[in-house]
Amino acid sequence: MVTSGAVAFGRQKLTQELLMSMSMRETLSPSDHTREDAGSTLDPRAAAAVGQSELMAMYDAMFSQYNVKIAQVLVTKPDFYNEETRKNLFCTLSELISLNIVPIVNTNDAVSPPMYIHDDTVVPGTGKKGIGIKDNDSLSALLAAEIQSDLLIMMSDVDGIYNKPPWEDGARMMHTYTANDRDLVQFGQKSKVGTGGMDSKVNAATWAMARGVSVVICNGMQEKAIKTIISGRKVGTFFTDSPITSTTSVDVMAENARLGSRVLQQLSPGDRASAIHSLAELLVDKKDKILEANSKDLDEATKSGLAKPLLNRLALSEGKLKTLAIGLKQIADSSYDNVGKLLRKTKLAENLILRQVTVPIGVLLVIFESRPDSLPQVAALAMASANGLLLKGGKEAAYSNKALMELVKESLQTVGAQDAISLVSTREEISDLLAMEKHIDLIIPRGSSDLVRSIQKQSQHIPVLGHAEGICHVYIDKEVDVSKALKIVRDSKCDYPAACNAMETLLIHEDHLNGQLFSDICSLLKQEGVKINAGPKLSGHLTFGPPPARSMRHEYSALECCIEIVKDMEEAVDHIHKFGSSHTDVIVTENDVTAKRFLQSVDSACVFHNVSSRFADGFRFGLGAEVGISTARIHARGPVGVEGLLTTKWILEGTDHTAAEFNEGRRQWLHETLPIN
Amino acid sequence: MVTSGAVAFGRQKLTQELLMSMSMRETLSPSDHTREDAGSTLDPRAAAAVGQSELMAMYDAMFSQYNVKIAQVLVTKPDFYNEETRKNLFCTLSELISLNIVPIVNTNDAVSPPMYIHDDTVVPGTGKKGIGIKDNDSLSALLAAEIQSDLLIMMSDVDGIYNKPPWEDGARMMHTYTANDRDLVQFGQKSKVGTGGMDSKVNAATWAMARGVSVVICNGMQEKAIKTIISGRKVGTFFTDSPITSTTSVDVMAENARLGSRVLQQLSPGDRASAIHSLAELLVDKKDKILEANSKDLDEATKSGLAKPLLNRLALSEGKLKTLAIGLKQIADSSYDNVGKLLRKTKLAENLILRQVTVPIGVLLVIFESRPDSLPQVAALAMASANGLLLKGGKEAAYSNKALMELVKESLQTVGAQDAISLVSTREEISDLLAMEKHIDLIIPRGSSDLVRSIQKQSQHIPVLGHAEGICHVYIDKEVDVSKALKIVRDSKCDYPAACNAMETLLIHEDHLNGQLFSDICSLLKQEGVKINAGPKLSGHLTFGPPPARSMRHEYSALECCIEIVKDMEEAVDHIHKFGSSHTDVIVTENDVTAKRFLQSVDSACVFHNVSSRFADGFRFGLGAEVGISTARIHARGPVGVEGLLTTKWILEGTDHTAAEFNEGRRQWLHETLPIN
Repeated sequence: MVTSGAVAFGRQKLTQELLMSMSMRETLSPSDHTREDAGSTLDPRAAAAVGQSELMAMYDAMFSQYNVKIAQVLVTKPDFYNEETRKNLFCTLSELISLNIVPIVNTNDAVSPPMYIHDDTVVPGTGKKGIGIKDNDSLSALLAAEIQSDLLIMMSDVDGIYNKPPWEDGARMMHTYTANDRDLVQFGQKSKVGTGGMDSKVNAATWAMARGVSVVICNGMQEKAIKTIISGRKVGTFFTDSPITSTTSVDVMAENARLGSRVLQQLSPGDRASAIHSLAELLVDKKDKILEANSKDLDEATKSGLAKPLLNRLALSEGKLKTLAIGLKQIADSSYDNVGKLLRKTKLAENLILRQVTVPIGVLLVIFESRPDSLPQVAALAMASANGLLLKGGKEAAYSNKALMELVKESLQTVGAQDAISLVSTREEISDLLAMEKHIDLIIPRGSSDLVRSIQKQSQHIPVLGHAEGICHVYIDKEVDVSKALKIVRDSKCDYPAACNAMETLLIHEDHLNGQLFSDICSLLKQEGVKINAGPKLSGHLTFGPPPARSMRHEYSALECCIEIVKDMEEAVDHIHKFGSSHTDVIVTENDVTAKRFLQSVDSACVFHNVSSRFADGFRFGLGAEVGISTARIHARGPVGVEGLLTTKWILEGTDHTAAEFNEGRRQWLHETLPIN
Repeated sequence: MVTSGAVAFGRQKLTQELLMSMSMRETLSPSDHTREDAGSTLDPRAAAAVGQSELMAMYDAMFSQYNVKIAQVLVTKPDFYNEETRKNLFCTLSELISLNIVPIVNTNDAVSPPMYIHDDTVVPGTGKKGIGIKDNDSLSALLAAEIQSDLLIMMSDVDGIYNKPPWEDGARMMHTYTANDRDLVQFGQKSKVGTGGMDSKVNAATWAMARGVSVVICNGMQEKAIKTIISGRKVGTFFTDSPITSTTSVDVMAENARLGSRVLQQLSPGDRASAIHSLAELLVDKKDKILEANSKDLDEATKSGLAKPLLNRLALSEGKLKTLAIGLKQIADSSYDNVGKLLRKTKLAENLILRQVTVPIGVLLVIFESRPDSLPQVAALAMASANGLLLKGGKEAAYSNKALMELVKESLQTVGAQDAISLVSTREEISDLLAMEKHIDLIIPRGSSDLVRSIQKQSQHIPVLGHAEGICHVYIDKEVDVSKALKIVRDSKCDYPAACNAMETLLIHEDHLNGQLFSDICSLLKQEGVKINAGPKLSGHLTFGPPPARSMRHEYSALECCIEIVKDMEEAVDHIHKFGSSHTDVIVTENDVTAKRFLQSVDSACVFHNVSSRFADGFRFGLGAEVGISTARIHARGPVGVEGLLTTKWILEGTDHTAAEFNEGRRQWLHETLPIN
C-alpha cells in the first residue's frame, strides 16, 4: 500500500512544506480502508510498488494546478545509517525547499526492509530507545526533527487522538496531548491497510515533541485542514509540552457550570444575594491587587499601541471599582424575586394544581471585549439568576480578568458554588465555543456590532442574544411641533452618536421640504457637527443638496446621518420596514391618530412617540442591569434585563391523578385560574 | 483556453454520464477567470491546444481514483454536417456509455472553426434558427438532445441564472427558468476567458429544453453538486417547461406572508376571529369537496401500500371535519386577548409612559406529516396570533392539503389578508426552506421525533420549537402509597404508550427491591403487556431478571420500558439529569419535603408530584390549542399554546423627552409600575 509522510510548517508563517501526510490516493478513494479483508492478503511492498508511480503522477497533476513544483525523494535505511548520505539527504531537502519545490518523501517500500534508527533517547511511554523508521509516521517525525521544523502535521482518517477507541461510549477527542496523557489513552486495533496506526502516530508525535517539534494529528479529509491549523484554530490533537494545557478543558468547565447553576438554584435567594454582596465587598477590599493587574494590561496595551478610547475602556480605577460595587449591591438587592417567581397558577381539577415558575436558562456564554468591569457585572447577573456562566474576555484585559475572576470564585465559594462561573482561557477559539451546543444554552456577546454580527453568523445551534445593527429612524410628521422635533432630533443623533439607539436616518414629511422646519433641522445638525447624507428622494428635490447616501441601510455610529423625504406616515413605515433593523423607531407628531397608527404598524422592538430614540435602554426602561438589546423575534426582545436570563418550568401537584380518569369522565376539568400572591 | 461540456443524467437514475461541464483545470485553479486581462491576448485555439493534453491527463488521474474509465472524443464541424459521421459519433458515445466508460467530449479547438448546425427550430428568445456549436454549451445541448438525455447539467463558476447581473442590487437567483423568463433577465458582460458566457448557456439550455431535455445550470465549485442535483435538491437554475413552476416562488410567498401578517395585525381582534369562524364554516359547508380530495389521497396511499395507522391519520371524515370546526371556533373565541395584550406598564417619568405589549412573532414555517387536519388548525392559530405562515405538508396528503388551503385562502380573503398563509409546494425541499432565515422567524415541526430531530439538526439560524425526545421518568420514592404508585405507573406508560409524555424509565427506591411493591409493579406491567428492560443496577441485584436495557437514554414509544434502582431521591435526580430529555419527570411520594426537593431540583420543562406524566399537554394545562411541547431553554418551554407564537414590543410615549435632560438632572426618573387594567 502506498504510504505517506507529513506536512511541516513554521510556527509563525509557512516556512517549510515537506510531505503530504495522507496519500491523495487514499484521500480520494471512496472505499473503506478499515474493512477487515481489504489488502490483508496484499504484500505491502508489492502494493507500494504498484502505487508509487500512480501516486507521484497524481501529486504532480494536483500541485501543478497551483503552479507548485514537486520533487520525489525516496529514502532507504542506509540513507540514514551513513552520516554522509544522511547529511546529503537533508541538504537536498533544504535546497528543494529554498527553491520553493515541495519534496515528496517516501520510504522506498519496494526495496527497503523496515528501518530502525538508533539514538539515545527513550521513546516516551515505550521504554525503547530511538525511533524505528518502519512507517511514514516515524519517517515524518525524524525528518521534522532533523530539519528543526516548527510544526509537523500528520494527517489520518480520524479526527485526532481519542481517550478511547472513538466508537466506544464516552470517547472524547483530546484537543491537546502532553507526554503525561500517554497512560490515559487506550488504543484500538491498528488499521490493516497502511502501516500507520494511531499508536504509531502517537509514538512518532511524542518522539518529535521531545525534540522541540510541535505536532498536530488531524483528519486529512477535513476541509482546509492545513490552513485552519496554521491560522491557530483547534483542529485535531495538538501535541505540546506547554504547561498551560494542564488547565481544565472548556467542556469540563461548562459541565461544572451546569452543576454549579443547579447549586445556585438550590440556594435561598438570600444566599445568592449574599454571594453577590461578598463580590461587591471584595472589589473594594482587594482594589490594590485588581489595579496592579490592570496596570499590567495597560502597560502592554500602551506598548502595543492600543487606541486611546480603547485604553480608556480597559482602565480601571478606585472610583470605577466603587461604582461597580454599588451596582452589584443593587443587583443583589433586586435579586430576591428572580428565580422561582410564580407566573401562573391554575387549578386544573380538584386537588390538581399547576404552577409556572421562573428558573435559570442554564449555562450562559458571555463574550466581552476590552472592558474588564463587565466581568464582575455579568458574574453578578448570573449569580442573581442562578445561571452557570462561561466568560470569554479579550486578550488585552487578560491580567485584569484573571484577578477579577479570582474574586468571583472567592465569593461563590462562600455559598459552595465556586464552579458555577469560569473564565475561559484567552487561547480558546470562539468558534470552538460556539459549537458546544450541548453545554451552552445562550450566548451573549457584549461588544462592537462586528463582534455580535460575527457571533450571530457563526453560531449554528446556540441562540445568540443581542443585535448586530441599530439603524434607528426618527420620522417627522406633517403635523408637528417644530421645537419638539428639533429637540428630539438633536438628542436622538447627538446625545451619544456611537450608541446603537442613536438615530441614523431622519425621515421628513414632504410638506416640510420647502418650509422653515427643514432648514432649521439642517442648520441644527450642521451646528452640532453632524454630516448629512441625502436619500434618493431628497437628492431629487434639491439642486444643490447634501451628498447622496451610499445606502439607506447604514449605521453611521458617528456624527453623521441620512435625511430622506417621505410622502406620508405610511411611506415612513414602509421605509422603516424596508431599511430598518427593527431596533428603535420614533414618530414626532401632534396628531394622536397618526401616532397610534405608527406605534401599531411599525414592527420594531421599540416604537416611540415624541421621545428621543436614546430611551431604548434597559436602565431607562426600569429593567435594572441590562444584559443587552435584542432584535430577535423569539425569547427576549428590546432592552433585556435579568428576565432575559430566565426561562420557566411547570410544576404540577396532585394526589393520584391519571389521564385515563379524565378521558373516561371519572374526573372533571376545572381549568380555573388562581390568583398569584 | 480549454473549454468544456456538460454532464447528462437520467431523471430517475443515473443513466448516462457524458461530459464534465467545467474543466477541472478551471475548477482547481485558484486564479480569477473574470479579470479583464487574463487570456485576452491569448488565441483561443492555441490555448486549447496547450491545455488539451494536460486536461485529459487530469481527468484520467481523477477518474481513475474512482475506478472509472474515460475516453476522449474530439469533434469537429464536419462530424455534425455529415449524417453518417454524425450517426457514427452517437453510436460511439452510446457504446462507450454502455461499457461504463465516460466519454469526455470536446470540440477539437485546435483545428475547428466555430461550428453552426442548421435545423428548423427557432432558438427561443433569439428569433434565430438552429444552434451554433461555437462553444461547449451549445455542444452539450446538441449532444444531450441527440442522445435523448433526461437531464443536462451545465457547470459554471456562478451559482445559477440571476434576474440581473449578480453583483447588482436586487439580483435574485432563479431556481427555475421557463422560456417565458427570457425577457425578465438582463445579462452582464460575457467572461473574457472561455467562450461560454451566461447568455450562451441560457441559449443552449432553452434550446435543449425545447427538445425535451431538462437542464440545470449550477456552480461547479459547489460541493457534491451532481449528487445533490440527482437527489432532486434545489441547486442552481432548473430549466423546465413544466407549468407547475409558474407558481409563486417560496421566497415571494414568505415575503407576502410577512406583509399578510402585518395586515392581520392591523385588524381588530373581532375581524381576526371572524376570519377563523369563516374557515370553520367552510370546513362544514365544503365537506364534499374536501372528502373528495381526501379520497384521492387515500386511493394513492392504499396503492402505494401505506401502513394502516398512517392511513388512519390521513383519512378525513364528516365527523372529523365537524370536530375540527368546533375546535376552530374555540380558537376564534379565545383569540381576542392574544395580540396587543398589555404585559407591563411603567411611568418612567412625568408624561413618559412605557408599555410592553404582545405582537406576533412574524412568519412561521410549520412542517407537518400525513395528518391533513393539522392544516386548518395551524392556520387558525396563525390567524388568531396574526402571524404569517408557510405550511409544508406531506406528499401523501397533497390533494387534501390543497383543498383545505383553498378554504383558508377564502376565509383570509374576507378580511383582505389572503397572502398571510400559503401552502409550500411538496416539491420544495425542507433544507431549502430552513436556509430562509431572512424570511422565516420560527419553525414548528409537527410530526415524528425523527422529523423534529432532523429539522433541529438542519436548521442553523432559524429557531425550532419542539422536542426531539421525550424520555420521561417516574420515580417511586421510599415513602409511597402503593396503590397510588401502581395507578400512576400504569397511566404514565399505558394510557398512550407512543406519546412523548409517556414514561420510558421507572426509577424505584432500592428499599422496595425486595418488597411487595416491586413485584406488584412488575406483575401490573406484565399484565398490561409492557416489556420490561433492566437498568444495570437492577440487573446486578437480580439473578434471573428482565433483559438488560441497551441504553438508559432510550425512547421506547411502545408498551416497553426500563426499570432501574436508585439509592434515594438525589440519585434519582442525578439519573434524570444524566439520561433524561428535560421533558417531564414525576415523583410519587407521600413525603412532602422529598417532593418539594424533587420539584425544585429536577431541571425539566415539567416536573410532577403524584400525577401521571401524561398531563404534560397544552390542552390539559389549560393553554387551549397546543402548538407543541418545547424542551428548548429559551423562548417557550413545556407545552406551548398560542403564547409561544407571540413576542412583545415596547411602546414609549412622551411629550418631548430627551436623554440629555435626564443626564443633566433637569428631569427625574420615576420608574413607577402602573397597574395593568
